[in-house]
Amino acid sequence: MNSQAASAPTFRAVDLIRKKRDQQELTPAEINYFVHAYTASEIPDYQASAWLMAALIRGLTRAETAALTDAMLHSGEVLDLSELQGAKVDKHSTGGVGDKTSLILAPLAAAGGLLVPMISGRGLGHTGGTLDKLEAIPGFNVNLSLADFRRILGKCGCAMIGQTAQIAPADRKLYALRDVTGTVESPYLICASIMSKKLAEGLDALVLDVKTGSGAFMKKEEDARFLAELMVETGKRMGKRVVALLTDMDQPLGCYVGNALEVIESIDVLQGKGPDDLRNLCLELGGWMFYLGGVSQTVEQGKERAASLIASGEALEKFANMIALQGGDRNVVDNPKLLPKAKHTIEVKSAQSGNVVRIECEAVGVANVILGGGREKKEDAIDPAVGLVLHKKVGDPVSAGETICTIHHNEDSRADRARRLVLQSYRIEDSEGKPRAMVQGVIQS
Amino acid sequence: MNSQAASAPTFRAVDLIRKKRDQQELTPAEINYFVHAYTASEIPDYQASAWLMAALIRGLTRAETAALTDAMLHSGEVLDLSELQGAKVDKHSTGGVGDKTSLILAPLAAAGGLLVPMISGRGLGHTGGTLDKLEAIPGFNVNLSLADFRRILGKCGCAMIGQTAQIAPADRKLYALRDVTGTVESPYLICASIMSKKLAEGLDALVLDVKTGSGAFMKKEEDARFLAELMVETGKRMGKRVVALLTDMDQPLGCYVGNALEVIESIDVLQGKGPDDLRNLCLELGGWMFYLGGVSQTVEQGKERAASLIASGEALEKFANMIALQGGDRNVVDNPKLLPKAKHTIEVKSAQSGNVVRIECEAVGVANVILGGGREKKEDAIDPAVGLVLHKKVGDPVSAGETICTIHHNEDSRADRARRLVLQSYRIEDSEGKPRAMVQGVIQS
Repeated sequence: MNSQAASAPTFRAVDLIRKKRDQQELTPAEINYFVHAYTASEIPDYQASAWLMAALIRGLTRAETAALTDAMLHSGEVLDLSELQGAKVDKHSTGGVGDKTSLILAPLAAAGGLLVPMISGRGLGHTGGTLDKLEAIPGFNVNLSLADFRRILGKCGCAMIGQTAQIAPADRKLYALRDVTGTVESPYLICASIMSKKLAEGLDALVLDVKTGSGAFMKKEEDARFLAELMVETGKRMGKRVVALLTDMDQPLGCYVGNALEVIESIDVLQGKGPDDLRNLCLELGGWMFYLGGVSQTVEQGKERAASLIASGEALEKFANMIALQGGDRNVVDNPKLLPKAKHTIEVKSAQSGNVVRIECEAVGVANVILGGGREKKEDAIDPAVGLVLHKKVGDPVSAGETICTIHHNEDSRADRARRLVLQSYRIEDSEGKPRAMVQGVIQS
Repeated sequence: MNSQAASAPTFRAVDLIRKKRDQQELTPAEINYFVHAYTASEIPDYQASAWLMAALIRGLTRAETAALTDAMLHSGEVLDLSELQGAKVDKHSTGGVGDKTSLILAPLAAAGGLLVPMISGRGLGHTGGTLDKLEAIPGFNVNLSLADFRRILGKCGCAMIGQTAQIAPADRKLYALRDVTGTVESPYLICASIMSKKLAEGLDALVLDVKTGSGAFMKKEEDARFLAELMVETGKRMGKRVVALLTDMDQPLGCYVGNALEVIESIDVLQGKGPDDLRNLCLELGGWMFYLGGVSQTVEQGKERAASLIASGEALEKFANMIALQGGDRNVVDNPKLLPKAKHTIEVKSAQSGNVVRIECEAVGVANVILGGGREKKEDAIDPAVGLVLHKKVGDPVSAGETICTIHHNEDSRADRARRLVLQSYRIEDSEGKPRAMVQGVIQS
């Protein structure tokens, strides 16, 4: 299934479109031709978008999905980290509100002897992005060359950068086209997009955190489970050890939402503090990373190892190290005041007494966007200092007049809109609130 | 449902794509926006092709099909022939092999008092095109301005030209895109393409000849019937009198295939001669034209009128008139030797005795293309003189050594390939051959 653009037989794009339209299975050679010819602009956008729509509606077989992933993966550079010690393991989340696990897990896993070459994205819409959070750290540079990325990985065991033009260029081009042609929402195309980028990191194993609930891209559990199974199966077909955890995103993860605020909460967790839901999810994901990476015999042992690396301070020290190597101020881990801070805060108080039975997760994410902490459009600039601190989560009792959330803001009118959204997003009732289980399923090949 | 591009609300193309993808019905305003914005290049090809693929797979409702037809119709000029006397009636065929009925019906209907503003196409693949046949007549000009078209219509009651840039430009642009994106084979899109072009002629009524059988675009009767019903329903929604006849194209229509040869056979029919199948189909279609145009009380009376216009020579005289007005040599109707003539003929003889039980219609069409009488690609030039004369049709008895077909050619190697195809296309067996009924169904609103 390797890329062999030069020696590939020449197919006609219109025949490949018709074949998918008529529910026939494309061969790996046909899919490989399609991806490489499109990336090289030999197939025009209008043919690619017709194929994508046919693929979205008709679906892809497991073999087609693996072939598509493989072709996209080989459309650019695939990192060869074989000269570096340690199993290459990464974690990928499908995104949500308050999800800062990457900031915790990369140094945690590296502290435990894994190599974590993490390439991440930016926030869009109501979900945050790892790169935006990292850039809240003064001086932190996410735009490293691949040579610098490799050098820092060798020194510290982890490094975190943004997408580069060399990695999976087919995905970059196809994603831009999907965005404007109504072809984003296909589990097959989503799988190929995620897996091609992640496996281009030259991994041995991958832990997938597939979110489900009101704040997730996949709101329905069955859709999240389908995508998770697809990604695990694709990873298996490509010879990688892959697991997917289906995890809850029906309320924000942890209590801090906003870029600098999420760095603070990440440091809290690395210091052995932080909220239970976030800490437990990190131990769970970290346990799987150690297990799949061959560092521990069982997932349970992996979790214990993760907990001890936090308790010993090694994980936090690794984070400080990575920050310094990527040009950032390592002192932030001891002194969060070095991070950007909003000028004002307002407290959002509950009008009624009762229990929190629900927090509309997407609304909280949108409140952060309104404050300036996220993007409506790709070009939007963001304000790293703003955000929300939730004092009450699902299941917590609340008295009338009690503060449920603190808004960090730099502009009164935005704060007012965010406050109204927060009030709408909390449902406080007499009945008992009960948070959903954090891990709702584990899918292994 | 009129075109109001200037005052139309602005929609986002990606939303219209998503809506069709998700099987929701688009409003006439949304479809109107899509067609006009695409024609004006405000919507790019890659969004239009994604929409077309979604429309092909999901299908369109009857209301969407009518709205699409209406928007395409109003993307350009709609002829206003109201100052001319007579009901405006046209005939359209979905195409086949040996189908020269347009050449016969336009003058026949005009001789009976109807106004026939016929805009036709060229041949592609195994099917012939009316324009190519007309151009076999020395001097005949199919590229008239709309002003000349109108003038000749006023003088003679019929005129026959090719597509112009002013008529339904949306169809021109959409068809070119469909051709390269695997989105041709949709009955909804085919219906909108045909009906928008035909109704742009400013018609009161339309007779559709939908072919079915081995030589038709729609090989299966159920597909042909579905398209026929769709076109009749669309015409009804647009306030036009429309009928569709499902007719046989399982063997070539008539005996002559090739451009000049088909002009000869058309003249034969207008002289009261010619083969039964062709003559009867023309009377049938002509009867419906007269009936829908209000010239006769019943279809049967219409057929009688058609027969008497042939018997009296009025139909032939009208053909000669139109030829002269469009720059052609009117003497061809009396002297077919004025038409281009191939240098050579060869006779194809049967190897066995028996009855003709089948003639592979598409193979005969391809034989004509091989001789140079048709096009593989749009750019190909054609040789008007070449073609085939079939001496035996389904049901005819044949003796071994008897001539079944005469090939008119200008190149030996091509003739040899055509001969082999003709031999393959005839199936001669002991069993009795029986031609299928010419008219297999009539669909009226």
